[in-house]
Amino acid sequence: MTNHIFTTFDKIKDRNAKEIYLKQRGKVIWLTGLSGSGKTTLASMLEKRLFEFNYFCQILDGDNVRSGINKNLRFTEEDRLENIRRIAEVSKLFMNCGIILICSFISPTNEMRQLARDIIGDNDFLEVFINTPLEVCEQRDPKGLYKKARAGEIKNFTGISSPFEKPQNPFLEVDNTNPELEQTVKYMLLKIMPEIRFDPTTNL
Amino acid sequence: MTNHIFTTFDKIKDRNAKEIYLKQRGKVIWLTGLSGSGKTTLASMLEKRLFEFNYFCQILDGDNVRSGINKNLRFTEEDRLENIRRIAEVSKLFMNCGIILICSFISPTNEMRQLARDIIGDNDFLEVFINTPLEVCEQRDPKGLYKKARAGEIKNFTGISSPFEKPQNPFLEVDNTNPELEQTVKYMLLKIMPEIRFDPTTNL
Repeated sequence: MTNHIFTTFDKIKDRNAKEIYLKQRGKVIWLTGLSGSGKTTLASMLEKRLFEFNYFCQILDGDNVRSGINKNLRFTEEDRLENIRRIAEVSKLFMNCGIILICSFISPTNEMRQLARDIIGDNDFLEVFINTPLEVCEQRDPKGLYKKARAGEIKNFTGISSPFEKPQNPFLEVDNTNPELEQTVKYMLLKIMPEIRFDPTTNL
Repeated sequence: MTNHIFTTFDKIKDRNAKEIYLKQRGKVIWLTGLSGSGKTTLASMLEKRLFEFNYFCQILDGDNVRSGINKNLRFTEEDRLENIRRIAEVSKLFMNCGIILICSFISPTNEMRQLARDIIGDNDFLEVFINTPLEVCEQRDPKGLYKKARAGEIKNFTGISSPFEKPQNPFLEVDNTNPELEQTVKYMLLKIMPEIRFDPTTNL
């Protein structure tokens, strides 16, 4: 048996090589906030604008996570943490591939967000608090969930029967009461751009 | 409250848009075979060659999966299936992002591989059987696992105390006894390239 079969080949396509390929820095933009605060809408708009600037992003949200990787999880406290753990691990895999993640999850507790931050790493976890007042979220109630929660049909509904712990020191805080969404997104982009911008000189 | 806040924006960055961006087709190349058959080595070489041709790939293997998303799984039968299920779901997320996945897992049973195929979709699941004879794998024994399995120190070791069900109709079959790995990879590339090649005319 020749020996070179098990030569370890350089893992040249590591994060840095992939960031060079995509000309961007992989990061995780983590949107946290109440149901109806505008996370999904802002995530979409953010992705759209970033794509116009040639940034390669991936949105993770309830839609593509609860129907796939996390479909075998329930809403017990343990499973809610496992939900966030898996999302963070998937995000990390994407980020290590140089991709910018936009994660959109209520993630109401400090424990949950700390778990995600620990997995992803402090430097790469951009916590964005969509701080839209409860009254505004409840007035919007796009999915009729607040109504059901008030009627007692949904238990442990964040903001009504279950607490939302405000992030203490988020990377960015947005009040999404303002209907001028384009302005809100612009404000977010101004803060996010320096974090994802690729600077080739750092590789010299 | 203005109404346009909840306008649904086109999800323009869907799979097709991302494939256009990357100029490739997202696919899952699923390497199955015994321990020591050469899956990891071939996965690395494949990624390296594809990267030279400007294809953007991601390897999923025991290293980055068992230490992250699947770290809370054991080696029971149930957990082995859950291991494959999560890997397939993560692969699907990447593939829907236009990325070429190279998955390297023993995945010894038809049930496991069928589960992965069902999740990923028949058209996108490229099953590659690394059909290196057991004797060769055992002779190589890079991690000393066969020795331990023969000594009874590892239970349910595929090929020794647990069966490997050969894929019935793989996309591609490779006997990796040949030490001319470059030739093997070339053969694989010739079959894989037409599957991942981007043809802009299909978007006209």
